Amino acid sequence: MNNDKLQATWIWYPDDYEIWLHRKVSVLRQYKGYICPPSWRLDDAYTCVKFRKTFRLDAPETLTLSVQGEFVLLMDGNMTPIPYERKRITSVVIPAGTHELTINVYNERYVPAIYATSDSCSNDGVWEVTALDGKWVKAASWQFHDIHQPPREFPFSYETFVPVQAAEADGGSLLDFGRETFGFLKFTDVKGKGTIRINYGESREEALAGQLAETFDELTVDALAASEYATPVTRAFRYVYVKADEGITYSQVEHAYEYLPMTAQGEFRSSDDKLNRIWDVSVHTIHLTMREFLYDGMKRDRWVWSGDANIGLMINNYVFFEQDLAKRTLIALRGKEPVGTHINTIMDFTFYWFLSLRDYYLYTGDLAFIEANYGKMLSLMEFCLNRRNEEGMMEGRPEDWVFIDWAPMDLRGEVNAEQILFCRSLETMALFAEKLRDPENRERFVELAGNLRCRIFELFWDETEGAMLHGRYQGEVNRSVLKYPNIFATKFGYLDERQRESVKKNVLLNDEVQKIKTPFMRLFELEALCLLGENEHVLNEIRSYWGGMLDLGATSFWEEFDPEVPADEQYDMYGDKFRKSLCHAWGAAPNLLLGKYVLGVRPLEPSYASYVVEPRLCDLEWIEGKVPTPNGPIEVYMDKSTIRIRTNSSGVGVLRFHAKSSPQTSDGELTSTGVGIYELSLSRPNSSYVIHLDSGERASR
Amino acid sequence: MNNDKLQATWIWYPDDYEIWLHRKVSVLRQYKGYICPPSWRLDDAYTCVKFRKTFRLDAPETLTLSVQGEFVLLMDGNMTPIPYERKRITSVVIPAGTHELTINVYNERYVPAIYATSDSCSNDGVWEVTALDGKWVKAASWQFHDIHQPPREFPFSYETFVPVQAAEADGGSLLDFGRETFGFLKFTDVKGKGTIRINYGESREEALAGQLAETFDELTVDALAASEYATPVTRAFRYVYVKADEGITYSQVEHAYEYLPMTAQGEFRSSDDKLNRIWDVSVHTIHLTMREFLYDGMKRDRWVWSGDANIGLMINNYVFFEQDLAKRTLIALRGKEPVGTHINTIMDFTFYWFLSLRDYYLYTGDLAFIEANYGKMLSLMEFCLNRRNEEGMMEGRPEDWVFIDWAPMDLRGEVNAEQILFCRSLETMALFAEKLRDPENRERFVELAGNLRCRIFELFWDETEGAMLHGRYQGEVNRSVLKYPNIFATKFGYLDERQRESVKKNVLLNDEVQKIKTPFMRLFELEALCLLGENEHVLNEIRSYWGGMLDLGATSFWEEFDPEVPADEQYDMYGDKFRKSLCHAWGAAPNLLLGKYVLGVRPLEPSYASYVVEPRLCDLEWIEGKVPTPNGPIEVYMDKSTIRIRTNSSGVGVLRFHAKSSPQTSDGELTSTGVGIYELSLSRPNSSYVIHLDSGERASR
Repeated sequence: MNNDKLQATWIWYPDDYEIWLHRKVSVLRQYKGYICPPSWRLDDAYTCVKFRKTFRLDAPETLTLSVQGEFVLLMDGNMTPIPYERKRITSVVIPAGTHELTINVYNERYVPAIYATSDSCSNDGVWEVTALDGKWVKAASWQFHDIHQPPREFPFSYETFVPVQAAEADGGSLLDFGRETFGFLKFTDVKGKGTIRINYGESREEALAGQLAETFDELTVDALAASEYATPVTRAFRYVYVKADEGITYSQVEHAYEYLPMTAQGEFRSSDDKLNRIWDVSVHTIHLTMREFLYDGMKRDRWVWSGDANIGLMINNYVFFEQDLAKRTLIALRGKEPVGTHINTIMDFTFYWFLSLRDYYLYTGDLAFIEANYGKMLSLMEFCLNRRNEEGMMEGRPEDWVFIDWAPMDLRGEVNAEQILFCRSLETMALFAEKLRDPENRERFVELAGNLRCRIFELFWDETEGAMLHGRYQGEVNRSVLKYPNIFATKFGYLDERQRESVKKNVLLNDEVQKIKTPFMRLFELEALCLLGENEHVLNEIRSYWGGMLDLGATSFWEEFDPEVPADEQYDMYGDKFRKSLCHAWGAAPNLLLGKYVLGVRPLEPSYASYVVEPRLCDLEWIEGKVPTPNGPIEVYMDKSTIRIRTNSSGVGVLRFHAKSSPQTSDGELTSTGVGIYELSLSRPNSSYVIHLDSGERASR
Repeated sequence: MNNDKLQATWIWYPDDYEIWLHRKVSVLRQYKGYICPPSWRLDDAYTCVKFRKTFRLDAPETLTLSVQGEFVLLMDGNMTPIPYERKRITSVVIPAGTHELTINVYNERYVPAIYATSDSCSNDGVWEVTALDGKWVKAASWQFHDIHQPPREFPFSYETFVPVQAAEADGGSLLDFGRETFGFLKFTDVKGKGTIRINYGESREEALAGQLAETFDELTVDALAASEYATPVTRAFRYVYVKADEGITYSQVEHAYEYLPMTAQGEFRSSDDKLNRIWDVSVHTIHLTMREFLYDGMKRDRWVWSGDANIGLMINNYVFFEQDLAKRTLIALRGKEPVGTHINTIMDFTFYWFLSLRDYYLYTGDLAFIEANYGKMLSLMEFCLNRRNEEGMMEGRPEDWVFIDWAPMDLRGEVNAEQILFCRSLETMALFAEKLRDPENRERFVELAGNLRCRIFELFWDETEGAMLHGRYQGEVNRSVLKYPNIFATKFGYLDERQRESVKKNVLLNDEVQKIKTPFMRLFELEALCLLGENEHVLNEIRSYWGGMLDLGATSFWEEFDPEVPADEQYDMYGDKFRKSLCHAWGAAPNLLLGKYVLGVRPLEPSYASYVVEPRLCDLEWIEGKVPTPNGPIEVYMDKSTIRIRTNSSGVGVLRFHAKSSPQTSDGELTSTGVGIYELSLSRPNSSYVIHLDSGERASR
């Protein structure tokens, strides 16, 4: 904000709103009538904090104060008389001169917070706060600027929808809202007495499955005069099956769609309509899962899982570029000190948290957020370092969940993929230590990461297989070749050119190697293939894998998909008929793949200070789209004869493209960097560049 | 319990009930209409925990289950169907065979807890619980054995009292309940409309002081038919001034006295009636402050302060020997990880916590409790060790409160008294490390304590003064001689015989040295004098200091007393007219002094495995009393011609007494251990011993 007078706002202890909100939403998961608290520690806001601010006034001033919680106000260390029947808004006169105000706030239910404003000062930026732990920090705020609305309910938006179709079935109604959605139901003009039973379905089959439906509500009706009844909690569904007791009537069922208001900044269109639909359904999928936090999926867990968030936040960078949500998610995942377990109890999910911070920093350049979380990064990394075995590697302990993927593999001992993720996390710490001018830790992490990387290659790179091996258990190397360590080693740039080619041929494009079935690992796999130049292969994979879900009627993308499973078993998961989540954040991977590897826009330095644009037309006639950055979108158009780029307001990009013969441009000097590979510097802000490809020949795929 | 079938009971995560309860009571402090949250971090119970137990059954069995909180129950890892409308009590059939039950409980308001019982097993002793931090521990329980009464309200007892006197004053009534008390007021048969204003007074003056009263209540009355009205919160008072709006009538004001039911195990009577009254008023004082926890005082803070608790718990060992309260208090003080500040933010109060644990162990022998808290002791000591200066000493940092006593002194830099308390804390850690077979830490703490003790004497023992000096600031020794370091060095046995005599003469009995005015430090001072053989001096101090409060009408002993202050300023404190607490735990010091140094009963080894009885008649005709131990009381009678001792069921004592000429007994062999000092072994359990002193001469004082 540039106002001289800062906007007054509610303030609280840093991270407390996010941590409080996370606890609150984490216990909303229901399954066939029972609630399921998560299996990891839920932290909460501090119940008692103290705010302070020094006023230097020429004349007395009236401070208007509202407090969320019980409080005592001290002026210069003395309690000042505010009546016990806590008024919502209180006035305190501060005399002229220099005075320190301290407000000690207690709230066991909501985040302790204050809103204080006066003629010459607001409370933004100058109030400090302590959690009574000996440290004072700058108070935090978000967008709660109304003194009457303290930080409590999350500010969602709502839209009302009616069913696009209704049909009678077994004495009730099957309502179809047209596509996957999320929110409440409202019944208008309800009369009668009894129960309205509502079975929700992400699929038609689930809504009609009676007791097998994963989620349901029962509204108890007792209405002589026409009344409105609403469901008590939000649900994910496309279909609902409604059955009311005899004698109950209502005029309409409306759906209050609850969502985080956002506009897609990223766009993608191409000559392939199916790809365009995949893009749109991906956008809808990721939008539904972006709420208070980045959730895994909407029907079942609705939890913040670090692995899912890692992918979801990367996808967000190519669609909504909504970074407040990213920050909330990363804060919620880490929780408070002390570290007791891995994040979500999963070893790899601890590493994904570090990786997510790295991505967040690369895409936003927001070093302040990294700095604010640096202490918690250090303590989490210390937790990891304390759990290494004699080899300096991470093994699962009985209380750890070593996940990697839903797929058969031996998770005991030193799993190679875990070591690679650990190594990347150490490198991430080294990077942040450098940026935050902590040379001692930088040196330490550089050394730890370097040693680990050497040891990984010594132990697990196998020349015979030309691949990374799976791991080691009780001193014996497990020679299985699975895609995971090979994907990560490719993605993190750990392989030399020879190894890259070998991994591509022997692992990633080798049909004998165990296939990946979750969109979770699919994304990493397809990214690796793009990094190995297999863009067209990836495009076809998107068409068949995500297109396969569309063919089965998907209006949002799923938690898991195996094209070979019979249609009537497609919604089964974890041994339950309809347990599979049909709206899962990682299902939206095409947004990332299309933006990052087809439009080809990727930052090289934080906040797109430098970046690359490497559009790949593959077999398409044309592609067109936008990729958001902190400084406005980068726009890309490409067909067989032309590339058009519009840059944003800052940063220096490089356009890299393939062309069979000499391309031409009047917007700068083209350099050839390899056979048929050209580069053009994109150094002018907010400018357009046009490149004419040799129209006689087809641009390279 | 010796039953084969254990009693079913509510269980929870260890320490969570205490920590939850502590948070709850810590925000009850009020002052002239505002609430005062404390200035230290308040921890809370975990909101989400998981219980587990393995059942091995020959036949199916029905488990009866009640849960405080929302929950999901898993049998062998699968969720079992318990309806969402959580019934208070649920039944689950466990099939024959081996099955693991897991109950994941969430509660953001109360302690997550379960009560589970079945035909062949109860839930005591075999359920484990995790706070989802990777560690499973044995679940904790206390005395909540009723399935319908989960751990929530503290189980107090109540008695009803009516005023012993009532008088009209200024249109209202001044009611006198005869002595300091605590609880609610009830107005019976109230009719009319308006407000009943109640001003509380620990003194008559306070109750009549109008707006100056520290605590008050206003009851809003609107009663056509006669109704009962009760005050909403508990208060400390002897007097109440009640003024009702015109038109309001009531028949009676009753007082519901709320208390922890306990019977005094310790007793003391003597030929001096004033001493006997001091004993009784001390018992009343300490009883009022012993509730959920050991509180500092009843009117004002009603907080758990570690220094106050240290003294209060020592006093308890000579009166109620109520060790559940001791455990609750020590758990509440320490709270949860991570350590952010000193306990109560006060450096010395961190050390008193260690000392309190040492006392607790010495008096009870309860090593299991020490073991349960050992991790938290280590982390708190680590916190201290990380804050030492280059000299290895503790200095106050800006966020620390260095307290010692309410008295003028320089608290900057290396305060000697703090180093001595720190040294004793290190010795305490060494002791516990030894008992808990942790040789590495034992060695480390022995060395740390040894080095520190040497450095303390090098720096602060001054031969010229023949005393411990006050401290050092910025490298310069502060040569003030104050009692504090000399008291502690005496109490912890750090002085040799020559130093002891020197300290006694030059400091403790030296009128030139700044006097101690708080009963807090008075207790340590008087203990030190007893340890230096000045028992008769101490007895006279008790008579004048505590007797002085009785002379001013005290019915419980005060936070602070200075005989020289004019009577009408006796209730002033912290700049406020009636802010002084007139019922303060540390005021009950005479219970300790009389039991420990007049009856003279003191444990030498944990749980009184060995102990000393050293009665000191001083100038009294006779003394008589009991001191509680875990194995029953030790009874002592002494007059000028006889000593009678009755021992308890275990432990070996030694009776030590002074006699001018040869005493006689048929109960063992008397040995002379110095001029006029005799010892008799008390090795028979539950036995009486009689010693005839030379009746011709007077027993030594």
